[in-house]
Amino acid sequence: MWHETKTQSLLNIEYPIIQAGMAGGATTPELVAEVSNSGGLGTLGAGYMAPEQIRSAIQAIKALTDAPFAVNLFIPSPKYSKGEEQSYIETGLKLTERYRQNFNLEKPQVHQVEEDFDEQLNVILEEKVPCFSFTFGLPSADAIQKLKDRAITTLGTATTVNEAIELEKAGIDIVVAQGSEAGGHRGTFLAPSMEQAMIGTMALVPQIVDHVSVPVIASGGIMDGRGVAAALMLGASGVQMGTAFLTCQESGAQDVHKQKILHSSEADTILTKAFSGKEARGIANPFMEEMAEHHDAIPPYPIQNAVTKDIRKASGQQKNPDYMSLWAGQGTRLSEAMTAKELFDKLIEETGALFR
Amino acid sequence: MWHETKTQSLLNIEYPIIQAGMAGGATTPELVAEVSNSGGLGTLGAGYMAPEQIRSAIQAIKALTDAPFAVNLFIPSPKYSKGEEQSYIETGLKLTERYRQNFNLEKPQVHQVEEDFDEQLNVILEEKVPCFSFTFGLPSADAIQKLKDRAITTLGTATTVNEAIELEKAGIDIVVAQGSEAGGHRGTFLAPSMEQAMIGTMALVPQIVDHVSVPVIASGGIMDGRGVAAALMLGASGVQMGTAFLTCQESGAQDVHKQKILHSSEADTILTKAFSGKEARGIANPFMEEMAEHHDAIPPYPIQNAVTKDIRKASGQQKNPDYMSLWAGQGTRLSEAMTAKELFDKLIEETGALFR
Repeated sequence: MWHETKTQSLLNIEYPIIQAGMAGGATTPELVAEVSNSGGLGTLGAGYMAPEQIRSAIQAIKALTDAPFAVNLFIPSPKYSKGEEQSYIETGLKLTERYRQNFNLEKPQVHQVEEDFDEQLNVILEEKVPCFSFTFGLPSADAIQKLKDRAITTLGTATTVNEAIELEKAGIDIVVAQGSEAGGHRGTFLAPSMEQAMIGTMALVPQIVDHVSVPVIASGGIMDGRGVAAALMLGASGVQMGTAFLTCQESGAQDVHKQKILHSSEADTILTKAFSGKEARGIANPFMEEMAEHHDAIPPYPIQNAVTKDIRKASGQQKNPDYMSLWAGQGTRLSEAMTAKELFDKLIEETGALFR
Repeated sequence: MWHETKTQSLLNIEYPIIQAGMAGGATTPELVAEVSNSGGLGTLGAGYMAPEQIRSAIQAIKALTDAPFAVNLFIPSPKYSKGEEQSYIETGLKLTERYRQNFNLEKPQVHQVEEDFDEQLNVILEEKVPCFSFTFGLPSADAIQKLKDRAITTLGTATTVNEAIELEKAGIDIVVAQGSEAGGHRGTFLAPSMEQAMIGTMALVPQIVDHVSVPVIASGGIMDGRGVAAALMLGASGVQMGTAFLTCQESGAQDVHKQKILHSSEADTILTKAFSGKEARGIANPFMEEMAEHHDAIPPYPIQNAVTKDIRKASGQQKNPDYMSLWAGQGTRLSEAMTAKELFDKLIEETGALFR
């Protein structure tokens, strides 16, 4: 009933199932390689990684698989002047001071708030990574040309139809439609407001499919074979799944994070910009709830992200889920603890007939 | 590939496609009957209708079809004391005074803020309506028993898994899972917050399916055959569609409302409680945007609904979309102007193979 889609051929993979490039340590080389070895596309979430860390991780992945994989980066934010940045950092440190006191942390020196995108991208170009995915906007025309010159397949994130149209116009090969169910950061870069860019996957996918001619990958709330099959019915050429892979054994997510996901319900997540300054979906905890009172004062991404780093780290070290980011989508009741291969095999068992 | 589902047999219909019971005049007897005559289930949205209006509409539907249909009611809100109600009415009138001035409207006497549910239900029982659907909560055990005694099939709205579980426990025959994409009022009645009950259809449906044994109908963002097929893949036994039927010729929605839907994008809707005091999704307009500043002061449903009635009516009479409720889901780019029969036939043409 199903034939090889353009996506499978573009990505040179057997099944159009992509493990999302979640930044922050979850996407270990083991996880990425296991997904790619299973016939899907593993993705290194390298948004927060320094260039040489990215290189090491890519080499580790290559040692574990000959199959295609992707690296995901964040499109850089508008730059602030040194003065603005310093003022934002001070505001952020003040808003979060009480948490530092609780964890006996000294006031940190916040130097670098964001990795250099061009240097990160250079590693991807040099290492000839097969696929490059990104979120929070569009790479420059120059960057896109360099990727094309090396025949690297590009995947961009869209949360609205207009964003998808812009990705196609810029020459991006594949659009990842991120529905409102998705965990972690919203990829939104053009919408009039965040609320208006919270389009459910069921509504978003067919509308994007109707407005671009490149393949569309569905993401947001897809956790099992039912979601994969539904996405294909909506006209998607494949799926991207994050939360489902986050609880896998090979995932580098902290155990306290995995446990929270495994024991959460669909109604436990909310959007927050408390951790990074950019809206993201995670399981509600005291840090998110308390910081919500200061919503309008929270510094923008990536400054708030740099500011909260020590608190998130301390919370994680103490296995305390209350002050760390617990990114998760709305499908949490469907999450399971298993290996990535077991999850992948289960997905194919449930939906394999659709791919042949 | 597909067999008659329990829903089709419970509802005694050919195709498990339900036209949503949208209150406010859209669900004319002609629309309801046309959907039922096509093999689906038409629904009269009677939430705001007086008992004798409901009776007339039911009789008009019966004159147009011998097929099963449903009537939808609102579960009543908690009652306020006369003093509280008067104070809420005054607040509401004050917040909306400027709009009344614009339309040259006199300050209205707000008497009855809600129709009597028991009297509305009595008409349904007396008229032996085949199916009864409801939203905003659960009918009393006594009301459910009366419906069962008359073999009336019941459909209740759930926006979370816990709400679905409560519906099943109360003996309701079918759960309508209302995803966050849906237009109009949220059916939420148990969630910790509205935000936490905004679960996308893709995530909501399979999680509800896993936690109840009654049939589940998917709603929210379903506009065409792709959505119908996707819903079935998620484990739903059928679908409920509102926005798609709102722009049909037989729909009683005002022409200015239909035109706004037909020319809107997926990112044009937001949640508001400006019109009724209860959160609902509609196309953003000046009334919603201006009233958002007073969000916390807006009186609760049904008081605000009674308070804004004259303004909505005046706006509609002037074909001015700025001060009337433009309820719509997130699938607006997929809406089309056609007859209900044409829409229904198109849905069956696109998905018919799944139903046989």
